[in-house]
Amino acid sequence: MENNHEKAVTSIEWRGDHVRILDQTFLPSRTVYSDIRDVGRMWEAIKKLRVRGAPAIGIAAAYGLYLGIRDLPENSYPSFEIEVKRISDYLNSARPTAVNLSWAVQRIQHTIHAHRDEPIQVIKDRVLKTAQTIHEEDKRVCKSIGLNGVDLIPKNARILTHCNTGGLATGQYGTALSVIYHAHVAKKNIHVWVDETRPLLQGARLTAWELMRAEIPMKLVTDSMAGHLMQSGKVDLVIVGTDRVAANGDMANKIGTYSLAVLASYHNIPFYVATPASTIDLNIADGTLIPIEERDSKEITSFGSAEVAPSRVEVYNPAFDVTPSSLITAYVTEKGIVKPDYTENLSKLFG
Amino acid sequence: MENNHEKAVTSIEWRGDHVRILDQTFLPSRTVYSDIRDVGRMWEAIKKLRVRGAPAIGIAAAYGLYLGIRDLPENSYPSFEIEVKRISDYLNSARPTAVNLSWAVQRIQHTIHAHRDEPIQVIKDRVLKTAQTIHEEDKRVCKSIGLNGVDLIPKNARILTHCNTGGLATGQYGTALSVIYHAHVAKKNIHVWVDETRPLLQGARLTAWELMRAEIPMKLVTDSMAGHLMQSGKVDLVIVGTDRVAANGDMANKIGTYSLAVLASYHNIPFYVATPASTIDLNIADGTLIPIEERDSKEITSFGSAEVAPSRVEVYNPAFDVTPSSLITAYVTEKGIVKPDYTENLSKLFG
Repeated sequence: MENNHEKAVTSIEWRGDHVRILDQTFLPSRTVYSDIRDVGRMWEAIKKLRVRGAPAIGIAAAYGLYLGIRDLPENSYPSFEIEVKRISDYLNSARPTAVNLSWAVQRIQHTIHAHRDEPIQVIKDRVLKTAQTIHEEDKRVCKSIGLNGVDLIPKNARILTHCNTGGLATGQYGTALSVIYHAHVAKKNIHVWVDETRPLLQGARLTAWELMRAEIPMKLVTDSMAGHLMQSGKVDLVIVGTDRVAANGDMANKIGTYSLAVLASYHNIPFYVATPASTIDLNIADGTLIPIEERDSKEITSFGSAEVAPSRVEVYNPAFDVTPSSLITAYVTEKGIVKPDYTENLSKLFG
Repeated sequence: MENNHEKAVTSIEWRGDHVRILDQTFLPSRTVYSDIRDVGRMWEAIKKLRVRGAPAIGIAAAYGLYLGIRDLPENSYPSFEIEVKRISDYLNSARPTAVNLSWAVQRIQHTIHAHRDEPIQVIKDRVLKTAQTIHEEDKRVCKSIGLNGVDLIPKNARILTHCNTGGLATGQYGTALSVIYHAHVAKKNIHVWVDETRPLLQGARLTAWELMRAEIPMKLVTDSMAGHLMQSGKVDLVIVGTDRVAANGDMANKIGTYSLAVLASYHNIPFYVATPASTIDLNIADGTLIPIEERDSKEITSFGSAEVAPSRVEVYNPAFDVTPSSLITAYVTEKGIVKPDYTENLSKLFG
């Protein structure tokens, strides 16, 4: 088991006075680490998907907020708090769909508020500590998700997954990929179908890279092949991550997830969603209320330096879609497996 | 109407003593025409998708067979026939799934056999004439498909299509795109969602290019967005082409078509298939018997010169999938609309 853990990826690391991230935009051809020393660079790294994946974005935002307040000259709490609010709003603006970003920022704000009677420097130290706690908790949470999910994976399972939900997307191990890792470690003799995940190819670039590092048998396919694989009886289950779960169990995830859920349902294949409880947003009643990020059309029309569509072509590029709870067989969380009725059972996680 | 016809693309043309093709591997960034003077170059053009689309492959193969026999030194019919057989097998080996290739080759063989008592030079002239007839017939057929299909298109329809089924894929107008062209010409105020169609991006590179030339409103999306579009009520119908239709109405088409058919069925959206009768293969009882071409993994792992997946990654790359007849609302052919029961109604087209 230790062997596989060593092969797990570290996408984000606190280095005493700055954050080091593995810049995911260069993978798989180059392994480039970036040292981030201010909140502006962290905002850019989140916006440009240098760091990505709902849990990793939360960790990055927490450290980013610390970097933003570390050198503030304010000495009085009221003026300090105004600056905290400004920097928090700025970080929240980087990406709208993943709840982990705003969750982490809000948790840091609570830390600040709880220590409002202490000297500003003490508050700053507390913020760093909270960021590190969020990071450490995520590692533990991801491990628990993986271990909890193993029971859902039959021996010899052929598993289809989408996007990247591995160590790159989290503090360690991942969410859906943590289940896959731990099923492999438990010698379930699994095989993984990796959707390439257009437009940004997180499956081809990142998930394939992580699975190959961990020596887990896999094959890369285009997103359009999922139906054919299921029709041919080559998929035993689908497992994906999520960027935000609503109170009723609807959830947003990488574009293409909803199509997979419909296809899985049509072929009577279980469809699982692995997520930390922190991604569950009880403030949102259902999936229709989750904001969906639209991204630059260049993500679809060009590939590195190559243009793959006519210039001036019109493009629609939503980054996420919403899967209704009725298509989800179960959620895998660090607190256990959650099955329908989701409105009732998700809220129990926080009871 | 004439205006739009002028904008229609010519992908293949007989130029007195050779074939000129529009090399589709360079589109949309460059418009490169290639002059093909021997059967070896034609085999390569078909294999490498310089000419592609089931009907266009049939036309190309017919001309290719003529180029192959034109300079044969054989003077006696029996030795000439042996060479014809050898060249036919060679052309048939270029691509296995589209029936039009073997259909065109077989039709030329019938021409040769029918004229077996005439001088070899006369037979050769007859072969060229048959190739030109196949080409001209395809143009007429595609126009009829388009006109017949217009009735299926409601006013203001938002139409989703996959791959390329336009003038580039046929003698002229296309199959599914011919319906779209003619609905536009009939002022139906349509809007087209164009699937990019991984891995070779025929939608992004070719269909977007053709629709923009014809000034038909469209937006490009990734294949993974179809479900989200349907869920959002943004798709009124799906129309695609096909590479081979079995006697029972099952059909093979570009990978991803089956997923679209399932999604359309789930959302109660009509799913139409536009095809010349020559693509219907009554010799094949059902879809399970259609051979599915697997293509090079490089189509998925690289993009021009850019590598988008780890080196040595394992890949599965079927070029087609099979959609069962139960998911197909109707076929649009040059002989009219065909609805279930397909076993009965498709065979009537040949009655």
